[in-house]
Parts: sequence; C-alpha cells; structure tokens
Amino acid sequence: MNPMKQTATLLISCPDQKGIVARLSNFVFQHGGNIVDSDHHTDFSVDRFLGRIEWEMEGFALSKAGLPAALAEVADPMGGAEGRPWRLHFSDELPRIAIWCSRQDHCLLDLLWRYTAGELRAEIPFILSNHRDLEPIAAQFGIPFRHVPVTHASKSEAEAQSLTLLKEHRVDLVVLAKYMQVLSDDFLRSFPSVMNIHHSFLPAFAGAQPYHQAHARGVKVIGATAHYVTPELDAGPIIEQEITRVSHRDTVEDLIRKGKDVERLVLARAVRLHLQHRILAYGNRTVVFE
Amino acid sequence: MNPMKQTATLLISCPDQKGIVARLSNFVFQHGGNIVDSDHHTDFSVDRFLGRIEWEMEGFALSKAGLPAALAEVADPMGGAEGRPWRLHFSDELPRIAIWCSRQDHCLLDLLWRYTAGELRAEIPFILSNHRDLEPIAAQFGIPFRHVPVTHASKSEAEAQSLTLLKEHRVDLVVLAKYMQVLSDDFLRSFPSVMNIHHSFLPAFAGAQPYHQAHARGVKVIGATAHYVTPELDAGPIIEQEITRVSHRDTVEDLIRKGKDVERLVLARAVRLHLQHRILAYGNRTVVFE
Amino acid sequence: MNPMKQTATLLISCPDQKGIVARLSNFVFQHGGNIVDSDHHTDFSVDRFLGRIEWEMEGFALSKAGLPAALAEVADPMGGAEGRPWRLHFSDELPRIAIWCSRQDHCLLDLLWRYTAGELRAEIPFILSNHRDLEPIAAQFGIPFRHVPVTHASKSEAEAQSLTLLKEHRVDLVVLAKYMQVLSDDFLRSFPSVMNIHHSFLPAFAGAQPYHQAHARGVKVIGATAHYVTPELDAGPIIEQEITRVSHRDTVEDLIRKGKDVERLVLARAVRLHLQHRILAYGNRTVVFE
Amino acid sequence: MNPMKQTATLLISCPDQKGIVARLSNFVFQHGGNIVDSDHHTDFSVDRFLGRIEWEMEGFALSKAGLPAALAEVADPMGGAEGRPWRLHFSDELPRIAIWCSRQDHCLLDLLWRYTAGELRAEIPFILSNHRDLEPIAAQFGIPFRHVPVTHASKSEAEAQSLTLLKEHRVDLVVLAKYMQVLSDDFLRSFPSVMNIHHSFLPAFAGAQPYHQAHARGVKVIGATAHYVTPELDAGPIIEQEITRVSHRDTVEDLIRKGKDVERLVLARAVRLHLQHRILAYGNRTVVFE
Repeated sequence: MNPMKQTATLLISCPDQKGIVARLSNFVFQHGGNIVDSDHHTDFSVDRFLGRIEWEMEGFALSKAGLPAALAEVADPMGGAEGRPWRLHFSDELPRIAIWCSRQDHCLLDLLWRYTAGELRAEIPFILSNHRDLEPIAAQFGIPFRHVPVTHASKSEAEAQSLTLLKEHRVDLVVLAKYMQVLSDDFLRSFPSVMNIHHSFLPAFAGAQPYHQAHARGVKVIGATAHYVTPELDAGPIIEQEITRVSHRDTVEDLIRKGKDVERLVLARAVRLHLQHRILAYGNRTVVFE
Repeated sequence: MNPMKQTATLLISCPDQKGIVARLSNFVFQHGGNIVDSDHHTDFSVDRFLGRIEWEMEGFALSKAGLPAALAEVADPMGGAEGRPWRLHFSDELPRIAIWCSRQDHCLLDLLWRYTAGELRAEIPFILSNHRDLEPIAAQFGIPFRHVPVTHASKSEAEAQSLTLLKEHRVDLVVLAKYMQVLSDDFLRSFPSVMNIHHSFLPAFAGAQPYHQAHARGVKVIGATAHYVTPELDAGPIIEQEITRVSHRDTVEDLIRKGKDVERLVLARAVRLHLQHRILAYGNRTVVFE
Repeated sequence: MNPMKQTATLLISCPDQKGIVARLSNFVFQHGGNIVDSDHHTDFSVDRFLGRIEWEMEGFALSKAGLPAALAEVADPMGGAEGRPWRLHFSDELPRIAIWCSRQDHCLLDLLWRYTAGELRAEIPFILSNHRDLEPIAAQFGIPFRHVPVTHASKSEAEAQSLTLLKEHRVDLVVLAKYMQVLSDDFLRSFPSVMNIHHSFLPAFAGAQPYHQAHARGVKVIGATAHYVTPELDAGPIIEQEITRVSHRDTVEDLIRKGKDVERLVLARAVRLHLQHRILAYGNRTVVFE
Repeated sequence: MNPMKQTATLLISCPDQKGIVARLSNFVFQHGGNIVDSDHHTDFSVDRFLGRIEWEMEGFALSKAGLPAALAEVADPMGGAEGRPWRLHFSDELPRIAIWCSRQDHCLLDLLWRYTAGELRAEIPFILSNHRDLEPIAAQFGIPFRHVPVTHASKSEAEAQSLTLLKEHRVDLVVLAKYMQVLSDDFLRSFPSVMNIHHSFLPAFAGAQPYHQAHARGVKVIGATAHYVTPELDAGPIIEQEITRVSHRDTVEDLIRKGKDVERLVLARAVRLHLQHRILAYGNRTVVFE
C-alpha cells in the first residue's frame, strides 16, 4: 500500500457470528471503498471474532464525519450485549504517544531514531521521566521533557500530575521505555492504554532484575517481552517477544548488553504494530495482524 | 478450526479490482457458509489480487457438485481475459502426492513420520527413486515403491515412465525429497506441479554441492530453500527458507549434517502449506497465507 | 578433526589457579600428543576453572592403561580438598545410553534416526518405557525393549528394576525422551546421570502441560529445554534451549505440533554434546564447549 | 573477566605443528601470567593453526616493552618460511577506527551509541563521508568530521587525501558504515584493514541494490554480511552474518527498513569482535573466537 494514501482502519472484536466479513466488506464496497488490507481471526475456544479492515478514503462515498454513524448501523448490532464492538482510525490522524523512561537510554533513543526515520507514524507531545538523566536526549530531538520524580511518599501525587499531562496532551498511548516505576491500579484505571518492555521472555523472570535471575538459572537464551500493562505486574497481554542466545561465557553484564538489543527491537516492533492499529487485546491475549 | 469439520477452500488470483472480497464473502454468506479463515494480498507492483477463503460445508446451501457452477458466475468475470482465475478444494478430498528421492533418507523419513503423525493430510500413492537404497523405508511405511533408474541414455524414457505413473495414480504434486536428477523442460511442461528442496538459501549456491560451495566461501550461516520447480535450475518460485548458524569449526561434513535438519524442516513446512492450499505462485513469486 | 582417529578427552573442573592450561597442555605435549581441540572457561564469580582437552592417541607415549596414573600426578593436585577433579574418555569406548520414553515417538525416532546416520556415537543397550506403544520402533531398529510399567503402588519396585537394568548394561547416561514419569530422589542418588527434554523454555512453564500453560498465557514464542535431572522438578542444569515463534492463530494443538520439532532438535543436540564429552555441569549451571 | 584489568592478547596464525598450545601457555605461565581466555582452531584442510591467548599483565614478569622480544624467541620459529606469525595487543592501547559513511545514518548512529555506551572500546579520531548529510551527527557526538567528496574524476585524489588522514591519525581499521563508494585496489594495497557491511547474506545479491534484487527474486529471508574488504567486490572474508524473515507482504521499502536492523546489528557485532582482537582472517575465511 502506498503509505501516503489516506485510509480508514476498522478494528472489531465481538462474539463470533455468521456473515461478519461479508457485511463489513460489503459496507466498504457499497460506498466505493477499495480495501487495501483485511485480516481476521476467530478464537473458537471463546467464540470471539476479531478483525481489521483498512480501505482507501479516496473515492469513498462517506466523509470522515459521516462514516461512524453509517458504520454503527452495520457494526453495532454485532456487539450485542457487550456494546459497541468497533473502533475506527484514520491514517491522517496520528496517534499521540508519550514515552516514559528512567535512566537507561537505549529504548528511548531507538524509538526516537525510528520516529525521525519515519518508521513510527505518531506524534510525541512529551517525554516523561522520574529522573533528569535523559533530558538532553529529549532536547536533541526537540521534544518537550517532563521531569516527574517519584518517591514512596510522592507517588500518588506524581501519578496525578502525570494523568493531567496525559489528558492535556490528549495522549493515546503511554510507552514505558525502561520506566522503572510500577504504576498503581488507580492510575491504570484512569489511563489503561500503557505498553511496557520487560527484559525477559515472560512469564520467566517477571519482576526485578531478570538478567540476574537468568544468569543465576543458567539459561541458554534470554529475551524481551512487549506487553500491555495491567494491575498484576508483568502479567498483561503479550504483544511481541524475541530472544537471543547466550552461553556460559556471558556474565550478567553481557546478558544486559545483549538484552538491550533485543529490548529495543521488540519494543519498536510492538509500538509500530500498535500505531498501525494492528493489535487487538482480549482477555489476557492479543491478536496481532501482521 | 476443528480439523475434522469439512471445509471448502477457494484460491483466487486475478487482476486487482474493487469489491472482490465483498463479492466472494457475500457469496459464501448468502449460501449460509461460515468462513473459518480468509486472507488476501494485493501486489500493487503488478496490480494483482491473490486470495484464499475457507468455509465450513456444514449448513452450506450448495452441494459439492453444485458449488463450482454457482461460484463460476461470481468469480469467473474477475479473471477477465486471463480466463478462470480460481481453484476450489474440499478438505475431504486429500491431495495425492508422490515423493521422489535418491539415496539420502532424511527428508523422506521426516515426511513419512509427519504423514503418520497426521501432520500431512495427503495420500501417497507411491514413492519413486532412481536408486533402490530407500526401498526398505517405503516397505516399512507400507507405501508402494517404484524404481525408475535414470542414465544419460535412458532419461527421456524414464521420464515417460514416470509421467505414466503420475497419471495412473492421479498425482497432484511431486515432492522432490533430495531427488538428485534434473527434470527436463518437456517433463515439466507435462507435469508442472513439482516442489523441490534445495540445500542452500537461494539464490546463493544454486547448482551442485552447495555445502561445499558454502564452506569454500566461508559463510557464517547456511540454509535451505523449498521452491516450485521451473525449467531454469533452482530458479523457481520460493516457498520457504530457513537458515542455521555455522562457524569456522564446522567442516563440510558438519555443514551437511546441520543442513539436513534445516532441509527436512523447510521441506515439511512447504509441503504442509501446499496441502492446506495456502500457497499461490505468480510469476517468480509466491504468496503464502499462513 | 578426523572422527576416525582415536583420541583421548580430558575434562577437568577445579578451583581456579595459575598454570592449569600450561601444565595440562605440557603433559600432552611432553608425551608426544597432538592436541586437536582444547577449550576452557573460568567462572570468576565462583573462582572455578573448567576445561576440556582432546588429543590424538596415535604417537602418544602413554597407553590407555598407563595414562590415568601419569595424568593423576599432574592433575590430582589441582582438585585440592575437593578430590580428583578430572575424567578421561577414549573415543574408541562408546558411551552407553538408555533411552526412556512413554507414548510419544518423535524424540525417540529422531534419536534413533541420528544414531543410525552416525550422528550419535554411542551404544544403546536398551530402550525402556512404562508403556508398550513404542515397542515396534525398538524392534524396527533392532534394539532391546524393556517394558517397566509404573503405577503409584509399583513405583519404587519399578525404579529398582530399572536400576538393575542400568547396572547390568553398564549404562552411562539415561536419556528421557518424553518419559512422562518423575524420578524419585532415591533413584537419582543411585543413578545421577540423567538428561531430560522439557517442552518449554525453562524456567517458564515448568511442570505439567507446558503448551497448555503457554497458550493460556498468550506467549509469542514457545521453546524446549534439555537439562540434567535433579531432585527438584525441571530445575536441573540447563544444557540447551531453543524456541520457535507462534501466533494467535496457533491452537494448543499447533503449539504441540510446532513444539515437537523444537524438542527433538534440542534433545538431539544435547545428547550429541554429552556424547562428545563437551558438557561440564557445576552447581546449577553447565559449561558447553562447542 | 574484569574488563578493567590490563591484559595482553596474542594472536597467532601459522602452519600446524605439535606443541604450539603447550609452548605458548608455558611462556605465559613461566612469566607469572594468568590466562583469562584462550582459544585456538586448526584448519586441517590447509594444516593451519590459529590461536588467541589473553592474559593479565598484573603480576606478569615482563613489561610491555620487554614482552615482544621474549615472545619472539618462542613464537617466531612457528612461522617458519612465512615469517613472523603473531601479533600482540594490549588492552590499554585502544584501537583507532575511522568510520566512513555516505548518507544513511543508521549504522553510524548505532556504532556511536554503542561507543558512548562503552560497548566498543576504541578511539574514533574522525568520521569521513563523501557527503555532508551526516556532519551534524558527528558534531553531536563531538567527533571530527571530514568531508571528502568523490567524483569519477576526483576519485584517486580523494583516496590519496583519505590515506593521508588515515596515516596522520594512525588509524588501525576503517569501518565502512554504509559508505557507498568502491575502494580502488591501490587504496586497499596501501591500507588493507577495512571492514564493510553489505546488505545481503552474501554471496547472494552482491553488488548494487541487494534489497531490490531480493524482492525481485521473491526470497523469504533477507540478511546482512560484515566482511573485510578485498579488491574483488563483496568477496572478502566474511566475519558475521544474520538474517530476518520477510513475506509476500513486504515491499522493497519494507525490506530496506527491516534490513537496517540487521545491518546495524551485524556491523556492530563485527566491529566489537575486531576491537577485542577475536578475528583472524586467512585466505578467504575468518576464524572468530567468540
């Protein structure tokens, strides 16, 4: 697909039923839309349909303003008792992400390099950190930097401050790029759209110091996991995982060094997939339409 | 999907045009079919649409006998000047494959083990070889063995004999599982549905003794390629490739040993994808709907 | 190295100290030995030296009978209070392995295929199983089959019977090729040289039904782990691990199918490394001299 | 090993002969050196010994100044008619590398990020380019930037200018980080220590536009190759290769994007190995002591 052409992307998650693909593709066709990508999956173990359709807006009979109401007529009934089952995204409305980090720079730098290179189509209204170490990087890329320190005493206040920032800047997704604080349940209830990179192949080595844990266990592969954040630590829906081989020659420091390459690759892939509206989470799982 | 449910699978390859997905999914829906899997791809560089739809025959309004004519009305026009653009497969009609081999047993054994384990849903009317070495394996799995020796002088006669066998047994696909003879253009014109495993990551090291070539070049990875056979040696559409790492410690014999594991994995994957009607070849390329 | 030449392989594990490599390579050199492979590793975190030296016996001044005593003079002092720190293996004395299995055939078949192909230089005095399902495979490869059923009531008796078999046949290593019984601490004290294949990338998904666990967790990679068996379940020293990617489309059955390929590859690699005396376990770790 | 401890590293490449390991490890031991790493390989097909020994200088009886002459007595005879077979490196003398680039920034940025992170222990006296595009990156990292434009007419003059720079700055290695000019035979004779990253898994797709070639061929994996540069284009000794999977959905632009991640990883690994003196090239091959 020509990335310059304007498209609409429909994501839908609803109870499985006959005719979903036919009805939705008909809807697009009858209004003169040209489907450039469509994919769907049925999880028969829970009878759930999950789908994604992307079509060109050029020559489409409905305007961006008129599209949702027309679509609702066709797609709302598919949700049944669950309520509206769909979301709509337009390629000319860039998702707004806030990148949160602490002291390690590799994931932040990698995301910013890809952002600059055009690999990540998003707006980044600000970078937030509980430390000042990475402020120069934000400056170098011309992105506002927000320092929100967190202590045990100030945590709820810091989260309130962060929430205000997120709302002010209409942020769609928080990307935790090695942000070393745990978010409270309250925060996640207020702002549930958070992605994290964990430096192990979950569920192995959840929690603190996974490379130390991996070294102590004597594993022959290490990995990283990008996942959405839920109240239970490192237990949210997994988006992407990758591993690299290690040997007895590798010290904890070597694992950390090798792991960084995996972390930044996995996080970058997950962010890109999210920005292209290719991920649907349901229960503790994700569907990734690659 | 429940593999025991009977399904129909439609493969289509035609010039790109609006509404293909809508028309085809409508066709299935209007006759009461439940789509269990559908995927498609448009190659914009040549304006070609390639798609696959699989639906359950249970509850479908058309019988196997009546389906083709009804489908033709909808789908034939999509082919335009190219003629009929679609093929239809029913899951209760197992594809018939002939496995051809020479002296090496690893690919043959792996395919037969998977066949026995139910991973490959096919019928294997016979195993053919230009040598007798692997006849005991055929016997052990209870599959007829055909010995068709090939010399420079007897080649065209041997190919004629093989063609007769293929027709007699209504073979759909020949799988070259380390068959060390080159097939003539004439043979391929008469029977074009042939898959081969080549023991290199093509286009590197086409032709004879790829592991010797790889060792001489000092590469750090070796690989294998499953592809459809065309008259030009090792130049047909690639279905699947995989690699494994090697080091300076590996001799040619080590490359051969390590390579065998890659060869049998790659060939098995490609055969399985073909048997599930997930591959569409066009020009020198394939679309693989995984 | 020419695999046909007779070699001696020395494995040593002792407190780190200066001059180990010099003393041992001198010992070989002064007796006219030609070192074909040597490798060593120092784990500075526990100040332990681990090494492997392999040299040709052709032209070596000491006979197989005389070698141990001469070597002891040089190498025994390196062990200090720990006692004798070395083991010696001769390439013309094949290790004797017993393969234990239950009902799944893929790992057993793969090992036997590699054994037949000359990839695994060992003797296999018997195959043991708690079921009769795989007896025909043993027969087909001409290897004695021992049926030792295990019930809750008969477990200690069955283990006693197995121990007798292992001693009778002077078995060096038990390979658990999908043997679905847990060995008792008593058994492992009597016969500690046991290797297992676990169908997950440990420490994730230890215990029963790892593929079901993996599917429930929604992981994007699955794996397998070969490890030595210790009393704590799935917690012994890891020898080798490998993974393969999965997606939301993969059911538990797909994970099981894809996992089999990883399991047999990982187990085969680990067995081969063990047979070549390339593994040293210490604490909960292994050094693998590849 | 503690990277802060000062070490000496000996690299040797000579005709195979008995006692090399013993003589060299004795040399270190007798002067009180503690070997922290040693590895060697014999290529029996050409009867060549290649080895690497690294030991701590703390407590070593010979000074840096006195070491070469003493070592020569032991090691020079091993070279025979070939002349001196060894090189010696001290960990406190950082190799000096010049990074050459054209317009693409990903490899340059990745190397500089790793340099800053302490992964690459080297000095970088200057960055050279035939374009000015990446000058701001050099400035940002505080490294001198040299603009040496190259036209067909000015090539030999430009190379002469570059050679002067390399000598002035006592550069040990030129790293071509997507430098899009071919170096002349004359240049390579004057300065043979040059590493390149080629964006394909060589020998496939040598020469121009490998991703276009790969897309046209319809491959299912793409890769990158780090190699030393020799007069024949893309035919020098391979140091490291890696691949990534692609599918029919990937356009040439996708291959280029995915390939960048492989390129920077492969080049960074190769540079690090070179800086640690872990690579020995002989004929058209490399030994990499990892």
